Amino acid sequence: SLGRGAIIANPNCSTIQMVVALAPLQEAFGLVRVVVDTYQSMSGAGAGAVRLFAEDLAQVTAPEVEVRPSPKGLGLDVLPRIGEIDAQGESSEEAKMVHETRKILDANLAVDATCVRVPVIQGHAEALTIETERPCSVEEALEALRSAPGIEVHVGDSIPTPRALERTPGVHVGRVRTSRAFNSGLKLWVVADNLIKGAAGNALQIAELVTSSSLSRT
Amino acid sequence: SLGRGAIIANPNCSTIQMVVALAPLQEAFGLVRVVVDTYQSMSGAGAGAVRLFAEDLAQVTAPEVEVRPSPKGLGLDVLPRIGEIDAQGESSEEAKMVHETRKILDANLAVDATCVRVPVIQGHAEALTIETERPCSVEEALEALRSAPGIEVHVGDSIPTPRALERTPGVHVGRVRTSRAFNSGLKLWVVADNLIKGAAGNALQIAELVTSSSLSRT
Repeated sequence: SLGRGAIIANPNCSTIQMVVALAPLQEAFGLVRVVVDTYQSMSGAGAGAVRLFAEDLAQVTAPEVEVRPSPKGLGLDVLPRIGEIDAQGESSEEAKMVHETRKILDANLAVDATCVRVPVIQGHAEALTIETERPCSVEEALEALRSAPGIEVHVGDSIPTPRALERTPGVHVGRVRTSRAFNSGLKLWVVADNLIKGAAGNALQIAELVTSSSLSRT
Repeated sequence: SLGRGAIIANPNCSTIQMVVALAPLQEAFGLVRVVVDTYQSMSGAGAGAVRLFAEDLAQVTAPEVEVRPSPKGLGLDVLPRIGEIDAQGESSEEAKMVHETRKILDANLAVDATCVRVPVIQGHAEALTIETERPCSVEEALEALRSAPGIEVHVGDSIPTPRALERTPGVHVGRVRTSRAFNSGLKLWVVADNLIKGAAGNALQIAELVTSSSLSRT
């Protein structure tokens, strides 16, 4: 049980939605390798970044779409630099995704990330490619994902996107298919609203879990 | 030599910029696996898509950034569906990247792609993770890339992005670093202006090559 002043670790938003999707797959098939490339929204960088982005967008003149360069915000661009880049060439956001995922799922898991800021206001998307220990079909993977808490599975024409899922709870997984890169592996597309299932929302859910488990012990 | 009416295959824009970056690495270290996730601009979908996108953006009201849903265009969203999606869950753009890359580089290469449309007007970006046959350091990789034609290598604080490189020729490679996912592997970020080094521009370069080689034979 937790004493007074106990500290509970809470991962960052890009890691949270990935491990929610990976956990049932690790349980069912075992994970060997994870390669993730992110599509992270402006709101992850704070209200100031969203304001700069809006100023940039105001320079877009429809319908000619002449975008003038702005030294300040992202504008209509994609930038693979979230946080500081270290001497090995890895950004602090990428290092977080590696270390937090290993800490939560498996200390020996081989994880590789490229974290990219994209011109989306709210909601992070992630393209995952995983190698599994045991062979798994798409149907088995969908079953494992569907039976896990907090995940909504999308199939067929239903493809989760950040804008369509704005203010929607849960971690949304779509485009589940077999990986061509590995003998046994999968590819997935994972979307969550970072302002709902982000660091703050997750902290609240942890607090609720702790409270309910403390209550159940009294 | 080429007779009259000869047909020369020309890959699509997302494949072109990737194989330009991969070719010197294959030559130097051998390639085993390639995982690529793309950040493809609106102009790749044609002038009509850019016009719809502009209409969507006109609905953005700065500085509150209230983006109203539009059933027509992408707007400020990311969509992992370029072309039709087949029964195995792969899009036609992804299948093209797999088959064209194998055709150009190595029929046995394991290639895996997720192709994503992003709110960028012009220029495609790609996050690559590769496994190499032989060990390679970042310095060796940079040397191989620098000595290849048509590639501009970016290091340190210089990170290539589609907007910054609009109307700039060449294939730009940055963020070269060691992959954590493989015992020997690399991660790269590749950007090119799809309206310059795209299918049309590449066809022109092939035509120039064919013409000059025909001339040298007469």
